[in-house]
Amino acid sequence: MTSRRTPRSHERRVEILKSAAAAFRRRGYHGASVEEIARALRMTKGNLYYYFRNKQDILFCCHEYSLGVALELLDDVRREAVPPDEQIRRLITGFVHLIVDELHGTALTLELQALPPPLLRRVVARRDRFDRGLREMLQEGMDAGVFAPGDPKLLAFAIMGAINWISRWYDPRGAAGSDQIAQTFAAYLVAGLQRRPSSPTKGAGPEV
Amino acid sequence: MTSRRTPRSHERRVEILKSAAAAFRRRGYHGASVEEIARALRMTKGNLYYYFRNKQDILFCCHEYSLGVALELLDDVRREAVPPDEQIRRLITGFVHLIVDELHGTALTLELQALPPPLLRRVVARRDRFDRGLREMLQEGMDAGVFAPGDPKLLAFAIMGAINWISRWYDPRGAAGSDQIAQTFAAYLVAGLQRRPSSPTKGAGPEV
Repeated sequence: MTSRRTPRSHERRVEILKSAAAAFRRRGYHGASVEEIARALRMTKGNLYYYFRNKQDILFCCHEYSLGVALELLDDVRREAVPPDEQIRRLITGFVHLIVDELHGTALTLELQALPPPLLRRVVARRDRFDRGLREMLQEGMDAGVFAPGDPKLLAFAIMGAINWISRWYDPRGAAGSDQIAQTFAAYLVAGLQRRPSSPTKGAGPEV
Repeated sequence: MTSRRTPRSHERRVEILKSAAAAFRRRGYHGASVEEIARALRMTKGNLYYYFRNKQDILFCCHEYSLGVALELLDDVRREAVPPDEQIRRLITGFVHLIVDELHGTALTLELQALPPPLLRRVVARRDRFDRGLREMLQEGMDAGVFAPGDPKLLAFAIMGAINWISRWYDPRGAAGSDQIAQTFAAYLVAGLQRRPSSPTKGAGPEV
């Protein structure tokens, strides 16, 4: 990120990231051009370069922005004194809103390979922190007997896949708004985790 | 597809599609070149053009191949005289194997925008048939009182998202094999649908 950060310029930067994320989604990272991103915002390419060094910088900042919001959400949820199923419900609800309402969530589903290794490592490290947080919440729920025993890693992938995929089908003109999607997904994805009254009461350790 | 189809040439075509799907996943459709796809198979570019007209043709055939396998799976499952939850369990299990074992499932998650409108329409029509089949199974399960009432469309998106996302994180050298992923995903994604003994016994129509 550049150091020219006033509230106004921060707002402008986020606008550019949203437009870029939409273009990357439509045409792929390699298919979308900086001209196209600038044109959609009625900016000149030169003006856009005041905010970002190049397309790679834009891709990196898309990830940084989305991951920043996601990690803030994770930390907020983790601080709340509610049972594990309610924590997961809140995380899923918040994450669906992030996907649908911010950047159309695209950044988190973009290919990372276009980033040079040091930036790639930074993005992957932050994404890993988020994944780790979700797995810990799942494990805590299993340990507490709220969730059925299972593999937290695979279950976290299933949850994140269901949510990340929203950016592939979501249509702002469609019937389902972000609240309805968030409620439906949270209810469904938490229900599948919960221990059945009929399940055998074996040790709540992870099962493989 | 060209008309030069012998068993041997069909096999060779599928090999090319698998290699192409892997390249598209690694570098995006626009980022991957026909040279690269050919080189990975120790073929010349000219030899590859014996099987496919161009990169677009390869992308189209990737989708055709994957959707063909997916629709065959759907039809097989629909013909089996088992309850809706068992049908969905079999569909999920089969689809995970398709994603992990065939083409690394990449084709189904590739951007479609690179296809010209007539080919795009054909792929979308077949994908829609699959989605419709899954939604019908969900609706039947709700009508039968096996599944809790819900929005079959959003639930189908959640299921397909969880599965399609596998192609983004699956590592053939990783700890989880396709059987384990298939079992875990099927159990989790079906459990979330099932009606709880404690749920109110209201009408089983879809809820919005």
